[in-house]
Amino acid sequence: MKLKAALFCSVAALATAGVSAAEPTPAERAVGYRKGVFHAIAWNFGPMAGMVKKEIPFDADDFALRAQRVAFLSTLPLEGFIPDSRVGNTDAKPAVWEEMDEFKSMMQTFETEAATLAEVAKDANEVTAVRAQFAKVGQACKDCHDKFKED
Amino acid sequence: MKLKAALFCSVAALATAGVSAAEPTPAERAVGYRKGVFHAIAWNFGPMAGMVKKEIPFDADDFALRAQRVAFLSTLPLEGFIPDSRVGNTDAKPAVWEEMDEFKSMMQTFETEAATLAEVAKDANEVTAVRAQFAKVGQACKDCHDKFKED
Repeated sequence: MKLKAALFCSVAALATAGVSAAEPTPAERAVGYRKGVFHAIAWNFGPMAGMVKKEIPFDADDFALRAQRVAFLSTLPLEGFIPDSRVGNTDAKPAVWEEMDEFKSMMQTFETEAATLAEVAKDANEVTAVRAQFAKVGQACKDCHDKFKED
Repeated sequence: MKLKAALFCSVAALATAGVSAAEPTPAERAVGYRKGVFHAIAWNFGPMAGMVKKEIPFDADDFALRAQRVAFLSTLPLEGFIPDSRVGNTDAKPAVWEEMDEFKSMMQTFETEAATLAEVAKDANEVTAVRAQFAKVGQACKDCHDKFKED
């Protein structure tokens, strides 16, 4: 009974995620997973960008929380780029799989820069350093998107 | 320049997530965010369920990693249930907003059970305890879905 409930979580959550509960293919699930993670990263990155751009007040605690989330989330997408998963509405270029070592390297750079931002953001007095490190994270995003993501 | 690159991350990531870069509404972004997080939870919950069901070999390290991810991810979705965001392909029932205190309480139960699972899973010898706690997490998923999620 309890086990059945436990299994319910993954199936129901997949349905929640807009994935057919009727057995999506592994490739379809992988695309949904990595897109979901990227969306969660963007959701948290947005307010950080707003603070850096001074469109909204700089809230050191909120920035630090979102930086911590982005650092954690940055470690998740790579697992979703499984073989033969350039399907559906993916924006991944063939280069992701053709040059996987380079792709992994750029994803690692993103993880490293995001982890550094989470550390720097812990000090509410380091706004200048936070802005500089935030730019490095954004550059890591852009560099990887430029090479591996369709416009 | 660097700031521009930094801003690129959130916009590009949203595009990556299948959200129109042409200003989605806050409600549309919130739905995409919470669905993305639920998908990431399901992606990690799936292999854990497979190990618990003994469909795949129990890999204590992999289970512990995924349990840690689910514990972290469990803290993220609530933020996406903003006012007036029952839009698009959401499966959220009106009850989410009509009984927000109850919804928050059930999400907190999920967070608590998931955090406990991540702790229990650290001990590779506690497979029985892990299976029992995994069932509690699944029950927390089911209880909340039964009340707040459309079938």
